[in-house]
Amino acid sequence: MAPENAQVLTIGVDLGGTSLRVAAYTPEQGVLNSITLRTRLEAGPLAVVDDMCEAIGQLLDQYSEGRELAGIGVGSPGPLELPAGRLHHPPNLPGWDGFPLLEEMEKRLNRPVILESDANVAALAEYALGLGKTLGVESLCMLTLGTGVGNGIILDGKLWHGATGMGGEAGHMTIYPDGPLCGCGNNGCLEVCASATALVSAAERLIAAGRAPGLALLKSKCGSLTALDLAEAAQQGDADALEIYAETGRALGICLAGLINILNLPLYVVGGGVANSWDLLAPSMFEELERRSYVYALTAPGRAAAKGMPCGGTEVLSAKLGAEAGLLGACILPLHSAKASLATA
Amino acid sequence: MAPENAQVLTIGVDLGGTSLRVAAYTPEQGVLNSITLRTRLEAGPLAVVDDMCEAIGQLLDQYSEGRELAGIGVGSPGPLELPAGRLHHPPNLPGWDGFPLLEEMEKRLNRPVILESDANVAALAEYALGLGKTLGVESLCMLTLGTGVGNGIILDGKLWHGATGMGGEAGHMTIYPDGPLCGCGNNGCLEVCASATALVSAAERLIAAGRAPGLALLKSKCGSLTALDLAEAAQQGDADALEIYAETGRALGICLAGLINILNLPLYVVGGGVANSWDLLAPSMFEELERRSYVYALTAPGRAAAKGMPCGGTEVLSAKLGAEAGLLGACILPLHSAKASLATA
Repeated sequence: MAPENAQVLTIGVDLGGTSLRVAAYTPEQGVLNSITLRTRLEAGPLAVVDDMCEAIGQLLDQYSEGRELAGIGVGSPGPLELPAGRLHHPPNLPGWDGFPLLEEMEKRLNRPVILESDANVAALAEYALGLGKTLGVESLCMLTLGTGVGNGIILDGKLWHGATGMGGEAGHMTIYPDGPLCGCGNNGCLEVCASATALVSAAERLIAAGRAPGLALLKSKCGSLTALDLAEAAQQGDADALEIYAETGRALGICLAGLINILNLPLYVVGGGVANSWDLLAPSMFEELERRSYVYALTAPGRAAAKGMPCGGTEVLSAKLGAEAGLLGACILPLHSAKASLATA
Repeated sequence: MAPENAQVLTIGVDLGGTSLRVAAYTPEQGVLNSITLRTRLEAGPLAVVDDMCEAIGQLLDQYSEGRELAGIGVGSPGPLELPAGRLHHPPNLPGWDGFPLLEEMEKRLNRPVILESDANVAALAEYALGLGKTLGVESLCMLTLGTGVGNGIILDGKLWHGATGMGGEAGHMTIYPDGPLCGCGNNGCLEVCASATALVSAAERLIAAGRAPGLALLKSKCGSLTALDLAEAAQQGDADALEIYAETGRALGICLAGLINILNLPLYVVGGGVANSWDLLAPSMFEELERRSYVYALTAPGRAAAKGMPCGGTEVLSAKLGAEAGLLGACILPLHSAKASLATA
């Protein structure tokens, strides 16, 4: 039994297609300890849930003495149906279609589990511990440019779930209606224009067409290319790599211009590995924002104040928290879950 | 002094670029009476405010006896800055840039005025008195396809304003990045792809290129074309008019697919004059939705239930209230304004 003034403890789980991480957390001390495991996809979802719950049990044994458990937060690849906590054809967890992740975890743990998509969890971390905290805003929209493009939206301090928990999928907004085919079945989604995968595909297309000699050489040296290779080439002045990043910034700008016109939030955050090359993306991105969002043009930082609007303007910034956002967000999820809302159907 | 069980009275104002309408309303009896005036744009904003306030005064003299005034609701062309109630370069009210409409009205009336964009007011009407009421949903997104394209978003029973009152401008989402130039400065907005104006422009382009003989003939007979002329031609089987409506449906579908992926609401309503030709728009629109929104593909009506999701699915429907939505919405605005929210900056 925890004493009356017991410290609050949470457990956070960052479930990915490659690895899974489990951490014990307190608001005062942050992450106390974490366990990293390989995600045994070949063994099936039940085995992966067993692995997660075993790691959770270890950390609970170690850290729950004298502390009060506020809950267990889990960030999972989507699409996730809420409040049921079921997965629907998750591209990064093949074989998990229809899997009732929340139910299976609660069955084993006999404790409250709060499940969110990984992109929502990252947005929550940025809201509560990152840029949202720094700027003191209660609403933000975050895009995570990684292997795919994740999105999380926080409105008035609450994660926006929508009617079935599938809100915040701006990664699948159409940017170019006749663009490359996306895994979701659409053409020209942001995900096929601005993810790390999309950057590499764009380079591969140029190389195949014989139009990027510098990148062809780089590829023949490295064997294969990554978004980071392209960023380094761009930093060293390779014109094709620079243009690939500029084009990514344009696609991102078109998407964000739409999100600004629709939601008019005080803060848009761009995270994930691709956002580390902010200087390569930002010029073309801001050019698109100015032209394609009159809301942005009216309310850009400084301009809103000059017009006498009582707000800090529309900020578009690269994420403050890095790769830890997923794990940290899962850890603080139980502390914010009471605020989460579903659109009443 | 109104008696204790006094009937609630509201005044609603529908301010347009051509005409303005003012109505007295009670929840029990609906619109008691309305006054329609020409909007004297040439006389300047102060004169138009005088006209509005005089009409409001007339209705108050006539109907406030024994009733309790809940407030005066005004729907105005946007962009509107809230909570200040100031206009910013409104395309349909030339010369009103920076005009403090709310302040000028409250100064004259000495009573609480609630100001919203016309598109928000129409969305509120559809929520409280139209499809939202029929389906029992608490969140919806409405697109109004008229001269321009308006948008209003209601989340959990409240109009979504965003940080500066400019949320809900999906009419300026980019559909085709290299599409026709919009008045907002962007290319390929929904507004230049799916408004009544856009339909006529598309026909004019075909006629100019000598590619629409039937429409050229129609134009030479009528002198000019309207979206309604095109709808009639399409109903009679004119292939070019049919294709113009199908293309409009595709643009609408691309926009709605994005909105569904971002917001995952239970209801999307399409209103305005163009939506009267629903049968001409719907087939291509739904085709785009199925392909471009995996959220829609998972949650279309019937499908969500079949997958065991406890919601009615994602409904996309043509508006229930017609041209009266603007005036009715303004009338009920004072009854709902306490619920409106601004994203805390």
